[in-house]
Amino acid sequence: MENKAIDLLVHHIGVLVTMRGKDEPRTGRDMAEVGVVEHGAVAIRDGKIFAVGQEEEVRAQIAGIAVKQELDAQGRLVTPGLIDPHTHLVHGGSREHELSLKLKGVPYLEILAQGGGILSTVRATRTASEEALYEKAKKSLDQMLLYGATTVEAKSGYGLRLVDELKQLRVAKRLDENHPVDVVSTFMGAHAVPEEYKGRSTEYVDLVIHEMLPEVKRQGLAEFCDVFCEHGVFSVEESRRILSAAKANGFGLKIHADEIEPMGGAQLAGELGCISAEHLLAATDEGLEAMREAGVIAVCLPATSFNLRLTSHARARAMIDMGVPVALSTDYNPGSSPTESLQLVMTLGCLNLGMTPQEVLTAMTINAAHAIGRADTIGSLEVGKQADLVIYDAHNLAYLPYHFGVNHVDTVVKNGKVVVTGGQLTGD
Amino acid sequence: MENKAIDLLVHHIGVLVTMRGKDEPRTGRDMAEVGVVEHGAVAIRDGKIFAVGQEEEVRAQIAGIAVKQELDAQGRLVTPGLIDPHTHLVHGGSREHELSLKLKGVPYLEILAQGGGILSTVRATRTASEEALYEKAKKSLDQMLLYGATTVEAKSGYGLRLVDELKQLRVAKRLDENHPVDVVSTFMGAHAVPEEYKGRSTEYVDLVIHEMLPEVKRQGLAEFCDVFCEHGVFSVEESRRILSAAKANGFGLKIHADEIEPMGGAQLAGELGCISAEHLLAATDEGLEAMREAGVIAVCLPATSFNLRLTSHARARAMIDMGVPVALSTDYNPGSSPTESLQLVMTLGCLNLGMTPQEVLTAMTINAAHAIGRADTIGSLEVGKQADLVIYDAHNLAYLPYHFGVNHVDTVVKNGKVVVTGGQLTGD
Ligand SMILES: [Zn+2]
Ligand SMILES: [Zn+2]
Repeated sequence: MENKAIDLLVHHIGVLVTMRGKDEPRTGRDMAEVGVVEHGAVAIRDGKIFAVGQEEEVRAQIAGIAVKQELDAQGRLVTPGLIDPHTHLVHGGSREHELSLKLKGVPYLEILAQGGGILSTVRATRTASEEALYEKAKKSLDQMLLYGATTVEAKSGYGLRLVDELKQLRVAKRLDENHPVDVVSTFMGAHAVPEEYKGRSTEYVDLVIHEMLPEVKRQGLAEFCDVFCEHGVFSVEESRRILSAAKANGFGLKIHADEIEPMGGAQLAGELGCISAEHLLAATDEGLEAMREAGVIAVCLPATSFNLRLTSHARARAMIDMGVPVALSTDYNPGSSPTESLQLVMTLGCLNLGMTPQEVLTAMTINAAHAIGRADTIGSLEVGKQADLVIYDAHNLAYLPYHFGVNHVDTVVKNGKVVVTGGQLTGD
Repeated sequence: MENKAIDLLVHHIGVLVTMRGKDEPRTGRDMAEVGVVEHGAVAIRDGKIFAVGQEEEVRAQIAGIAVKQELDAQGRLVTPGLIDPHTHLVHGGSREHELSLKLKGVPYLEILAQGGGILSTVRATRTASEEALYEKAKKSLDQMLLYGATTVEAKSGYGLRLVDELKQLRVAKRLDENHPVDVVSTFMGAHAVPEEYKGRSTEYVDLVIHEMLPEVKRQGLAEFCDVFCEHGVFSVEESRRILSAAKANGFGLKIHADEIEPMGGAQLAGELGCISAEHLLAATDEGLEAMREAGVIAVCLPATSFNLRLTSHARARAMIDMGVPVALSTDYNPGSSPTESLQLVMTLGCLNLGMTPQEVLTAMTINAAHAIGRADTIGSLEVGKQADLVIYDAHNLAYLPYHFGVNHVDTVVKNGKVVVTGGQLTGD
């Protein structure tokens, strides 16, 4: 078996960013340790990394083994496949008409109160056919892949009733099966209180707990459960109820916490041992401390605060300095963050969160892998992990956030297969 | 001749934004009047627009005339080709290493004082061969085209001595001749005081006036002259001297004015009758009033203020409301704005300048055409103008700034030829 042929040898890599090293989520100075190898190569067999490191060493390790295909990286930059750990991938409709309201200064919670915002997407998602949702989400997933993402988390939460939550989750599952990008599903029935339960949020929480959670679990359609804990959406107490029930049902836990007001969502994340807490713009020091204690990953979403025209952003620097591991994500959704580009998030991570290019990459590779429970198989280029990597038309890491607003991806290898070449999908 | 065949008929356009109407630069409410036609078509002959409007009407106008090629826009959005009226297209090197300085909070003028900033690009441009500059700029021009630009202004100003200013301008000229995108050249010898003239700016201004300007004119290498009027660069008095000499030499005038400090650059633009003034973040009401009186176009550069992490931006809303016509541009350059994407500028125009999608499009089509003296031939889809248009994978104008960070261009027609299709260059 040792001599079974290498399927793909990626060689002539100018700067190979491996992210190898520590197993646990990284924080503090470890976020800047990205494991750079110059003159690198990656040998791939059966969709997994067989050897990785300096080209000389890799060639020595595979000496005598046949190589089926060679891919010349032309001296360019290679990183692990990017991971987007927080998206609302599957939904109906788009909300460009709300842009004019926003430009007039109408606050988000007011648009929401007027039946816009999330609820208008709920209506569009409920009325859309499963096939239409699939086609729309597939197009977004194609974009994510073209911009370098090889694994994406996807939340439900635009159905807000069992039949439509299941519909969303089935679309995510089919995409995971059919699309090169791996899709990790999160059930988020508690994304908003649906119109028909207005003023009766307790009843809706009961529905989520007693009807939705068990059925989603029974059908095996989601790995995580997420709640939007925010003033006017779900209270800390309601969030605790839902997440506790989810935990009892065997779900991993996530929470949209302290995005707009300091509600204590970060503390709750610590208390319940969530795998990640999201947004966190208004999280207090005590909240972050609770997260640090419990090892909760902070998923910061700078494209959202950018698009909401906020003047302050998540305190990623403080989080890193105090020992909270930070991940970054697009938060792709049709309201607050209609973008699929993790490369723009890199730029925003630097400019608006004050992170360095190294920290940014850590946040969308190994830490993002931890945030979706996949650090054993993805997030770094190490022997035995999935062969997910990106070749950029760039020669160093800082170039990616620096040269902004365009796509630097040239080639994407997913599970050892070339799925993007010359910046284009290779097709099925 | 009336019956000579139509070369290309673009039909089945869902939303055709023509920008037709007023001849003069638009401001106030006119900036929102973008001339939308539903169910539109454009008939093209000899690289020019032969008929444009509702498909029924266009088909009636070309009844009995052969059509060589039809292009089905599939119900999508079409706009005039985008125009980028302010770029530093041709230069050597890139400056991603300055990102870490910026993240540490080192101000731009201090990086400049340390020999970084513009001056490091000057060194890289001087040492680069003309061929290397051409290849690098061509790649950027390809990107601009892929993101929808069909005409681009390009400034010199990284040579700062005659031989290298001419080298930059020759590259721009060759690109204009060889590349589908039209390149309009601006001489900007007064972009910075070169190191060898440190402390002797008067002598350098003399050099620009007596040596460079006449030779650039003699060789016909630039149409406009631009000056960086800023504290620590060129004073208002020096700028007046250079631009007055340029005017005497027959150049159109542009000025980088009041970007960082209110110097009175906007007033100078009014006084000298510049065609445009650029940046203007610190322009006073009096300065803008002087511009309005003289009909100077304000070229706002929101990608620059975004990338410089400024919390206040050009007062585009105030400009529009008081009657100053506004254009938008990438300011593509390796320091303060390394992006080729006018689509990201659309988003920034909305989010950071408070402009509407309609105003944004006006600012990068007809007003941008005015800012480079080309409104007679480009900037709107009207009979007799160049057939420059973009088909987007979108169904309304607001979708472009709304769905940010990715490229929505599907097809670009330049001078009647399809130069981008399926989001890819068609090649030579
Ligand atoms: Zn979210
Ligand atoms: Zn400039």
